Amino acid sequence: MDPIRRCVQQLARLPGIGEKTAWRLTWWLLRADDELVTELSEAIGGLKEGVVECGTCCTIASSSPCSTCSDTRRDPALICVVERPQDVVAIEGSGDFRGFFHVLHGSLSPLDGIGPDQLRIRPLLARLDGVQEVILATDPDVEGDATALYLARVLKPLGLKVSRLAYGISVGTEIEYADRVSLMRALENRRPL
Amino acid sequence: MDPIRRCVQQLARLPGIGEKTAWRLTWWLLRADDELVTELSEAIGGLKEGVVECGTCCTIASSSPCSTCSDTRRDPALICVVERPQDVVAIEGSGDFRGFFHVLHGSLSPLDGIGPDQLRIRPLLARLDGVQEVILATDPDVEGDATALYLARVLKPLGLKVSRLAYGISVGTEIEYADRVSLMRALENRRPL
Repeated sequence: MDPIRRCVQQLARLPGIGEKTAWRLTWWLLRADDELVTELSEAIGGLKEGVVECGTCCTIASSSPCSTCSDTRRDPALICVVERPQDVVAIEGSGDFRGFFHVLHGSLSPLDGIGPDQLRIRPLLARLDGVQEVILATDPDVEGDATALYLARVLKPLGLKVSRLAYGISVGTEIEYADRVSLMRALENRRPL
Repeated sequence: MDPIRRCVQQLARLPGIGEKTAWRLTWWLLRADDELVTELSEAIGGLKEGVVECGTCCTIASSSPCSTCSDTRRDPALICVVERPQDVVAIEGSGDFRGFFHVLHGSLSPLDGIGPDQLRIRPLLARLDGVQEVILATDPDVEGDATALYLARVLKPLGLKVSRLAYGISVGTEIEYADRVSLMRALENRRPL
């Protein structure tokens, strides 16, 4: 197959990249330095070989234990539970969290056949020694809420403090433009001044 | 370097792909089939090895002469001159053109040191045997206009019919929202009914 069309076809398989963007990227690559193209190709090709699931927090990383789990300056009494590895990156990016993470790799969704055994809940229960608080940072949707509820029921009897991320209107959102669900949550979770 | 961050960094070098999109694509690739990731990596890696500049029309293709130049059903009396290989794809996509192409690889831009010798104008002049009409399909900007004007001055004395693509308001554009320059061109190029 023509290498140009082949490249377009492969790029167009990526999410959010349509055929037009795939063509645009391919033409750009054809004019780019050979070195850049080789580096990109190798970075994609080497992505999966170089990663493992961290034996402690279950995130996807280049080593196990991952760099976060190896960080001795973190507070071992605090674990933040998230659905996906990318949520770890997002929360780390906020710069304010100094505890450890645990990645469930999904959320409870009985209709899709995803129950507690399909998530990394057992590895979470195995690492609770010394932990005082678990923050449930699952998504604010039906599955994420159900997962948080399930975990709260399991964790609270163990004497742990269990909390959930605050959901409300985003900082910077004008109330006029806030979506209904966020506004509802913001009202429910109102705080005394 | 961590293979995940390396992949993000390389993807973020692509035009129109910022760091957020690069992260999103990388997480998607991590969950995708190994086969898909390998195919994408190989398609990018093999892009440049498999292409040459066509000795006739100067487009970038997998063979020389390219598949368009080898197409004997085309009208040898008609050549459409474009700036870039992707313009060939766009015009072919319109489905209406049955002549041959010629790719200049740029447009005249004296300030950037791009004169006639930096474009594929000599190979164009070398293939005019039997040609009756040259359509100048350079971009409707200062450089594209200058290039078309230059080529018209060179080609007309050779007894060729020289034309330029019609520029006006796009089909489907409401006049209210048409940009000023296109509207100006549409007025200039108005046609009697």
